[in-house]
Amino acid sequence: MRQAVTRLRGAFAIAVICADYPQELIVARQQAPLAIGYGQGEFFCASDTPALVPYTRAVLTLENGELARLTPQGVSVYNFAGDRLKKQPRTLNWNPVMVEKQGFRHFMLKEIYEQPGVVRTCLEAYLNPDWSLGSNKPLATINPVQLGITDGLLDGVEQIQILACGTSWHAGLVGKYLLEQLAGIPTMVQYASEFRYAATPLMPNTLTIGVTQSGETADTLAALEMEKQRRVGKPAPFQARLLGITNRPESSISLLVDQLIDTHAGIEIGVAATKTFVSQLIAFYLLALDLAYRRQTLPVEGIEQVLTGLRQLPALIELILESQERYIEELTHEFAETQDFIFLGRGINFPIALEGALKLKEISYIHAEGYPAGEMKHGPIALLDAKVPVVAIATPGIVYEKVLSNAQEAKARDARLIGVTPLNAPEANEIFDNILPVPAVDEILSPILTVIPLQLLAYHIAARRGLDVDQTPQSRQERDR
Amino acid sequence: MRQAVTRLRGAFAIAVICADYPQELIVARQQAPLAIGYGQGEFFCASDTPALVPYTRAVLTLENGELARLTPQGVSVYNFAGDRLKKQPRTLNWNPVMVEKQGFRHFMLKEIYEQPGVVRTCLEAYLNPDWSLGSNKPLATINPVQLGITDGLLDGVEQIQILACGTSWHAGLVGKYLLEQLAGIPTMVQYASEFRYAATPLMPNTLTIGVTQSGETADTLAALEMEKQRRVGKPAPFQARLLGITNRPESSISLLVDQLIDTHAGIEIGVAATKTFVSQLIAFYLLALDLAYRRQTLPVEGIEQVLTGLRQLPALIELILESQERYIEELTHEFAETQDFIFLGRGINFPIALEGALKLKEISYIHAEGYPAGEMKHGPIALLDAKVPVVAIATPGIVYEKVLSNAQEAKARDARLIGVTPLNAPEANEIFDNILPVPAVDEILSPILTVIPLQLLAYHIAARRGLDVDQTPQSRQERDR
Repeated sequence: MRQAVTRLRGAFAIAVICADYPQELIVARQQAPLAIGYGQGEFFCASDTPALVPYTRAVLTLENGELARLTPQGVSVYNFAGDRLKKQPRTLNWNPVMVEKQGFRHFMLKEIYEQPGVVRTCLEAYLNPDWSLGSNKPLATINPVQLGITDGLLDGVEQIQILACGTSWHAGLVGKYLLEQLAGIPTMVQYASEFRYAATPLMPNTLTIGVTQSGETADTLAALEMEKQRRVGKPAPFQARLLGITNRPESSISLLVDQLIDTHAGIEIGVAATKTFVSQLIAFYLLALDLAYRRQTLPVEGIEQVLTGLRQLPALIELILESQERYIEELTHEFAETQDFIFLGRGINFPIALEGALKLKEISYIHAEGYPAGEMKHGPIALLDAKVPVVAIATPGIVYEKVLSNAQEAKARDARLIGVTPLNAPEANEIFDNILPVPAVDEILSPILTVIPLQLLAYHIAARRGLDVDQTPQSRQERDR
Repeated sequence: MRQAVTRLRGAFAIAVICADYPQELIVARQQAPLAIGYGQGEFFCASDTPALVPYTRAVLTLENGELARLTPQGVSVYNFAGDRLKKQPRTLNWNPVMVEKQGFRHFMLKEIYEQPGVVRTCLEAYLNPDWSLGSNKPLATINPVQLGITDGLLDGVEQIQILACGTSWHAGLVGKYLLEQLAGIPTMVQYASEFRYAATPLMPNTLTIGVTQSGETADTLAALEMEKQRRVGKPAPFQARLLGITNRPESSISLLVDQLIDTHAGIEIGVAATKTFVSQLIAFYLLALDLAYRRQTLPVEGIEQVLTGLRQLPALIELILESQERYIEELTHEFAETQDFIFLGRGINFPIALEGALKLKEISYIHAEGYPAGEMKHGPIALLDAKVPVVAIATPGIVYEKVLSNAQEAKARDARLIGVTPLNAPEANEIFDNILPVPAVDEILSPILTVIPLQLLAYHIAARRGLDVDQTPQSRQERDR
């Protein structure tokens, strides 16, 4: 193994077993995460700690260029040169309750149900208790949000670039909408895997935000590292300003960025990101409000209105979960044979259409695709017929009528139309064959609610097909590679 | 009809026939294109002139708020108030040869074959004959490109935003790569349908480029109009700078923008854009070179290298067409039952993966989806199995090995792998089940070549299924709406 690993190129985390030594496992890490769990007379390896916590809380994370030999007697760690290293496992302080299913059939469903609590925790961690429109303190001198980000990182920012992959990239698209519309800052969202090989030319006074749930996503880390390196030694306006948004503040991203927003979602065991996505959205709401306050792009009443709306979200998510889950489970009967889905959204809900499609695709193996509704006529409309259901997100606001009009175009192709839309809107009732109702809220807050029925839809379609939704073919390790 | 149209909201172009008057057709236009053709004792209406040219070259384009009555005796035009208007058809100066299939089974195939000529025409129109590395003139004082764009539009530009829909949006993504990497200007590409309802905050010294083949795409026109209006009366750096890229310089976009680049592709009758896409790419190469020259971001040798490469493209496209078409036609036998395709690309060929998927989707009704190859592990990998072919674009350059590595991940799922890649690369030969060879050229020029086999693949899959590829379900009118 030592000889082999020195000849390998690229990133890897591998485990090897030899038929002649069935009691031994040799593992090696280079640029891809690898964790070892210490049990009682048994030892484990995994690409990330969440996979280990059901078995043990004593975990050792290998570093790049390290090998380990696991036997029933213990673990020995070496560097690639063969030197023995002294390494001790650390004890995770995760509550054991967090790593049990607690009566849920899958971790994914449990984590969907944790979302009201996650939103509450995140708001509680970062909203300033001293901010209150009713209090006597002079509001304008108190930032409503306390993310702990220094002035140096945010002052004078003229543009923002967001680097991410997968679900985090979808969160970044919502982030762009919020940062542009609330804080007035032009924002680009880039695939980390693209940006690292063809970066946008250096812009002055630019905040770069890396978003990664695990803090280990290789492309995102590499893109951040590249951004950091190319700004070294540049004049002051071009100095790097790097912010991370992650659910794992102890992870590798913490070494790369100037500051972190911890999304406080708690450990996510299901492979399909649900609660961590919602917590990333909350991080972007808070960052946008922080910047809106600093730059005075919103009046205090406007900020208060968003804050009030945010505080109401946990109860509204609970309402959706309580009232909708059984209906959605029933509805999935009708999609037993469905092979394709189209998801449509516009504006701040366009990324939610992408996310709804991704959830379905990654756990049910259905070819689901998300589109900005206005683009439907430039392509996906050709696919539509009675066999391809269309899920349209239509929440009251500036693009509401436009989405309904796009949905009608789909209906003209005999597509079955499912609306994620408030109840009691007569025009929507007429158009949609089925409605997954969400409470009517300020359009800017709607993504946190519209994503919930889409998570349930993906979960129940996959569960009905007998799939193990917690173990999708693209494992955590593959995603982080 | 007059009473009805004044009660309609939104954009429309409609034709109505009454059972009691079967010899009469009443048409009306509001914000959507509508053209009337004058034949011999017969009259036609259509959403765009290309549909009329096989029948007549005398065409009248209605304007917003106009109605017309077509009978075998003639055409009378009215405004919505009922006043008769005096209108004369104009005679199109299109060569009749351009609107015949000339032995090709479909216009789409004919237009694919016109691409070498289109590239030649476009280069001839805009390359400066006085530029030549071998000549005695002082090179640095001669712009290699003569697009006729005034200094006022381009001087001091700090960023570019590109607004487009569908295939033009894909051209815009290639444009971003070129403008950023050759001319060093940060560039955002936005869906016009999204931008018009949630515009990025005003940036100073910004060039806005609207890309629309027909010059009539409603969302793109509305987005440009909005951009123009919101900059009226602003300080100088915020004044609008609007450039259009279109194949129809006489169309509505000409009224909105400061200047136009005519892509000189000639009339496109097939509904799937092929030659107009390639001509849009050429426009972006030329614009990027123009800016690179003005801003001195490339040395003259670098500019000359790109120019030399561009001049070789027509012959290389011919080579692909001659050598590959029969092979691709044969290959489509094997996809008779295929329902899903995944297209992968990275860097400058990521938009080509999107375009290859869109072509297949819009004319064959196969659910094809394009992805940046690095994102595959964050979603579409779950779909892959022996039934889902993967087309990967792998051309030598900075992302070549990365794409091959992504393709290998797909292969591990038993997907059938088709490579758009140069011949004689042993590592590619090993990985791909089939190769659609393209000549090896400078990576920056490769999109013009890699898109050709993807057009042929889409065409032949659709033709083999017996579909009328020139008449897809999303008609021109729907796209322009």
